[in-house]
Amino acid sequence: MGNCCAYLGPQKNTNVRVSLPAVCFVWQIAMIVLFGVFIRYNPESDAHWVEHMRTENISSDIENDFYYRYPSFQDVHVMIFVGFGFLMTFLKRYSFGGVGFNFLIASFGLQWALLMQGWFHFLDHSTGKIYIGVENLINADFCCAGSLIAYGALLGKVSPVQLMVVTLFGVTLFAVEEYIILHLLHCRDAGGSMVIHAFGGYYGLAISWVLYRPNLHLSKRLNGSVYHSDVFAMIGTLFLWMFWPSFNSAITDHGDGQHRAAINTYLALASTVLTTVAISSMSQKKGKLDMVHIQNATLAGGVAMGTAAEFMISPYGSLIVGFCTGIISTFGYLFVTPFLENKLKLQDTCGVHNLHAVPGMLGGFIGAIVAAAASEEVYSREGLIDVFDFEGKHANRTVGTQGGYQAAGTCVAIAFGLVGGAIVGFILKFPIWGDPADDNCYDDEVYWEVRLAESNFSVEQS
Amino acid sequence: MGNCCAYLGPQKNTNVRVSLPAVCFVWQIAMIVLFGVFIRYNPESDAHWVEHMRTENISSDIENDFYYRYPSFQDVHVMIFVGFGFLMTFLKRYSFGGVGFNFLIASFGLQWALLMQGWFHFLDHSTGKIYIGVENLINADFCCAGSLIAYGALLGKVSPVQLMVVTLFGVTLFAVEEYIILHLLHCRDAGGSMVIHAFGGYYGLAISWVLYRPNLHLSKRLNGSVYHSDVFAMIGTLFLWMFWPSFNSAITDHGDGQHRAAINTYLALASTVLTTVAISSMSQKKGKLDMVHIQNATLAGGVAMGTAAEFMISPYGSLIVGFCTGIISTFGYLFVTPFLENKLKLQDTCGVHNLHAVPGMLGGFIGAIVAAAASEEVYSREGLIDVFDFEGKHANRTVGTQGGYQAAGTCVAIAFGLVGGAIVGFILKFPIWGDPADDNCYDDEVYWEVRLAESNFSVEQS
Amino acid sequence: MGNCCAYLGPQKNTNVRVSLPAVCFVWQIAMIVLFGVFIRYNPESDAHWVEHMRTENISSDIENDFYYRYPSFQDVHVMIFVGFGFLMTFLKRYSFGGVGFNFLIASFGLQWALLMQGWFHFLDHSTGKIYIGVENLINADFCCAGSLIAYGALLGKVSPVQLMVVTLFGVTLFAVEEYIILHLLHCRDAGGSMVIHAFGGYYGLAISWVLYRPNLHLSKRLNGSVYHSDVFAMIGTLFLWMFWPSFNSAITDHGDGQHRAAINTYLALASTVLTTVAISSMSQKKGKLDMVHIQNATLAGGVAMGTAAEFMISPYGSLIVGFCTGIISTFGYLFVTPFLENKLKLQDTCGVHNLHAVPGMLGGFIGAIVAAAASEEVYSREGLIDVFDFEGKHANRTVGTQGGYQAAGTCVAIAFGLVGGAIVGFILKFPIWGDPADDNCYDDEVYWEVRLAESNFSVEQS
Repeated sequence: MGNCCAYLGPQKNTNVRVSLPAVCFVWQIAMIVLFGVFIRYNPESDAHWVEHMRTENISSDIENDFYYRYPSFQDVHVMIFVGFGFLMTFLKRYSFGGVGFNFLIASFGLQWALLMQGWFHFLDHSTGKIYIGVENLINADFCCAGSLIAYGALLGKVSPVQLMVVTLFGVTLFAVEEYIILHLLHCRDAGGSMVIHAFGGYYGLAISWVLYRPNLHLSKRLNGSVYHSDVFAMIGTLFLWMFWPSFNSAITDHGDGQHRAAINTYLALASTVLTTVAISSMSQKKGKLDMVHIQNATLAGGVAMGTAAEFMISPYGSLIVGFCTGIISTFGYLFVTPFLENKLKLQDTCGVHNLHAVPGMLGGFIGAIVAAAASEEVYSREGLIDVFDFEGKHANRTVGTQGGYQAAGTCVAIAFGLVGGAIVGFILKFPIWGDPADDNCYDDEVYWEVRLAESNFSVEQS
Repeated sequence: MGNCCAYLGPQKNTNVRVSLPAVCFVWQIAMIVLFGVFIRYNPESDAHWVEHMRTENISSDIENDFYYRYPSFQDVHVMIFVGFGFLMTFLKRYSFGGVGFNFLIASFGLQWALLMQGWFHFLDHSTGKIYIGVENLINADFCCAGSLIAYGALLGKVSPVQLMVVTLFGVTLFAVEEYIILHLLHCRDAGGSMVIHAFGGYYGLAISWVLYRPNLHLSKRLNGSVYHSDVFAMIGTLFLWMFWPSFNSAITDHGDGQHRAAINTYLALASTVLTTVAISSMSQKKGKLDMVHIQNATLAGGVAMGTAAEFMISPYGSLIVGFCTGIISTFGYLFVTPFLENKLKLQDTCGVHNLHAVPGMLGGFIGAIVAAAASEEVYSREGLIDVFDFEGKHANRTVGTQGGYQAAGTCVAIAFGLVGGAIVGFILKFPIWGDPADDNCYDDEVYWEVRLAESNFSVEQS
Repeated sequence: MGNCCAYLGPQKNTNVRVSLPAVCFVWQIAMIVLFGVFIRYNPESDAHWVEHMRTENISSDIENDFYYRYPSFQDVHVMIFVGFGFLMTFLKRYSFGGVGFNFLIASFGLQWALLMQGWFHFLDHSTGKIYIGVENLINADFCCAGSLIAYGALLGKVSPVQLMVVTLFGVTLFAVEEYIILHLLHCRDAGGSMVIHAFGGYYGLAISWVLYRPNLHLSKRLNGSVYHSDVFAMIGTLFLWMFWPSFNSAITDHGDGQHRAAINTYLALASTVLTTVAISSMSQKKGKLDMVHIQNATLAGGVAMGTAAEFMISPYGSLIVGFCTGIISTFGYLFVTPFLENKLKLQDTCGVHNLHAVPGMLGGFIGAIVAAAASEEVYSREGLIDVFDFEGKHANRTVGTQGGYQAAGTCVAIAFGLVGGAIVGFILKFPIWGDPADDNCYDDEVYWEVRLAESNFSVEQS
């Protein structure tokens, strides 16, 4: 991958004064044009709603879906911007980049996602328009999440222009794999273990593998946290952790579906915290805890419940999922991340392998197993049809078949992540993107005006 | 304005040990008395609700408006206290004052707002009482926002007692201009581009202009951020940005109105982020981004959509609004704020000119244009009546006339801000308020017990 | 309590490498087994919901209680993890422990709470199962709060293993006293002034009293805040303050009950802020404010409204409650905490005496008075029955009697806290728990891998 062998020095050109504004302007103008051509309000957000209510026999404004999706949407929105953003502030001198670039690419990604998902799932072929409402906003936020996960593997090593490219392709690939998994294979994946986490995780890992930096040790002094940056990262961790039940239930069926998905996720996450603490403590001399584990592995239970949350996995089943994924994820941080870096030449800044890729993959297979084990006794006849959407041309599908398709869906997501990420990685290797040199990574001073901080302040004080 | 010409020294008396407790106690007691005389629960929050349900043929407890306003209320509440509060923590040694005084004045302001808005809009003349429910709480939070915006222009230069005065008058002026704009002129202003942002912005600017400090450069060492204070400010930025769709939709009509307002604001804000980044990067050598722009200008799209969010501005229209205001706001931070300070003798700590005053004014005019362009084709006959409330004595108003009134409303808001702010500014010039000397601004040590911080800690550590 | 008299030195063994993982694993496995035996989905979260709807004549999915409790649940969830967690980050070198151990014990506590509260309140004796839904999740979060409050008194002085023990017993005691107070005495306590705050406060104080450390002054250098840790703590303060209306209304009756509880709490908290600022300013030379008061005493109004929030206390009544408790709580921080430490040998790190114990007790008695003063005129006949649940065997209870029972309930909560805390304190004195030595308290380095922070960083920079 990387093929240099000597000191690289600061000779790389990290000036993005042309490329970053150009990308932002051109792509934003493209969004405006495409929205102008394609995007319209759906009946629930259009001023014709009063007429629509009459036609559809809707008796009251409060039956508008806004009231049953919007609180979940806002929780998801917080996860995307504060959750992912602050989780990536843990580096001592890359907090601006962590939260700031996350802000940038999510803002672009959600627009592109409304279009891409719209074309695949919501295009009205009679009018050629995509009609959007609150559910589309949730899906757009979900779609961004794949690229934000990938950012976790690349944190500190890429330029904002590269991140925009990662997001452009990430959202595109997401929409395609989601179409294949949810529509062609007719899988269920409410919280996106497969389509979001497995895909996003492997997408980021593949990019990072292609962009391997043999001399990254030259930036080692900045690849770590300080006391306060670890506390900032806990803001991200906790908002992700707290709102994950909303994430996994945001687009499930109304009624018992949303209710159950929230309960299952809540339980799995609680269980994960205890096993994460246990393994973290066991792994260190004197039993001291490591903030890296607490910030990340505690979330793995939410990832792993992304597919099965809406199923009748039962409360203790959720606890078991959380129990196992907490252990697996923490072991990943302890042993797999160093192994990947040293043996496989894969540098994964945030450990997305342990938090998203593997728990997402597991979540996909857990979903397959739980689906295959479903029965009319547990779900009721109608419940089974509702939960797995055994209607239309899928009316005769058995739960065993469904389980097989769920497993196949997981493989599709991983394949899209790996292949797509490898291709995007090669695109990002062109020397035009303004990425930092190996001795210049993890440093906000490359892309941000940084005030001379504490040291300067102390001087002024004295 | 300031008329001194030599070193001012620390001779100003910043002791607020009598004035601050006196203001807090006396005004709080006044609130209690006035609430005792005027404020009662409305039918939806009164224990007579069961009887009210029967009288009004309400079939179920879940039709209580609490369930359709409260989630939005909580989002707005977070914006007022965490959003505004943390946005103002960016200064290296004024974070306590930023978040703490915001907390104080919002807590007073919302009580006074319940009374002022109650007298103007919700007074039952038969009983002489104001009946409050969750919608009043949202409006009270909105009303505070005007004064909190003004605080942004004054940050670091005034005493908490002065801020209480700013809030007392700010809320009073707000209630009057809101009455004129919403009731007399019958304007629509769901998210308050006019009544909140244009008013609040110009109110703060006028006060700051009157309180001009010619020797403020003596505090220059503290007028800036440090690394961690910029990360704290991003907490404020993101919670404002994420919850702005709730802000603009919190009090719009149930159904499509709230739904559409949320979508429009979500899109405008996403677009703003990209153009803010573009301009910020273009403006700096090597294309580095400036945290001041990311923290502030990214929010301008929400401000500018405050009036038009509930209209059928269409999704691409929202993107265009966000696109333009991101550019305008960032240019404001680059060129207008320095110009105001150097040429117009107007010191605007947080740049409320660029974030609230101008985008608010633009939002008012955008609203006027979109209103004037409304048609039955786009809105449907009933939709038009619903959105613009063309009922009662306004039943015959045309959309063109409505547009004219909207524009007039914007001017009223600005006029109230400028004139009111000038008067309040002169009141604040009396030498009784305990404000800091010119070489003592932006410093928490003036009004807070500050532990000797990092320096002290390092000493102890060694 | 402590009986040593000379320098203790670092001879205590704080290695928790065996005990902490053992406790986490064994207890989590116990949870899984007990959940497997006892916990099932309730009809609203079970896939049989479609059938249940038909049986119960429920016309639509949107009548699922999920939609009317979940937004409040998420607010409460934020209070438990971010609110309590960040409020305890104020110490200069115990932020990891503050937010991290809070995360651990709440995650365990909520699982144990689902079981304990389930056995006492929700056990279906025909099937031997506990059927859970969103309301149980809220109650579980509430139940944890008691133990988290107790942690406030112990912050920095105990090991994570001890905290797990505190939580195990705390949740158990909570479930019993809650059963006595709410079921046997038939008290109303929507926001838990009695069952949560008075109990939790006195529970923590009693434990801390038993664990008195005579040489704690040896850790004095770390028992205080630095500038940024005080700003972190404000995150906790504000999320608690903002979402307290959701806390007090989360499990009240649908309709006017929830609506009124939110309004009353909102008002009481606003009032508290002003009197807290007033007393804080009065107490310091030159009127400077103390962050300790702003972080804590501003919340006392929410605690004190925990019982009466759902009653017709009237808006000005809420303001009066907030007014008084702000004063009392701030005085507590100024005078009572030092008195407790010096005279009663009771070390209360966060001052839970002033924020939870006393305001909780007052809240219980305020509730008793407001209940006793209730009348049919104010509540309506049906309203009175609804609010106080005068049904079944309590149909003939008078409001006077109810007031008496409310007062008795407060005493029960305090007694449980004091006696339970004393017993748990003695258990924690066994020398097996890995707690720190007296000169080693308030220090994250004991239980966390701490990077060498700013000092190290500065060196690298230079």
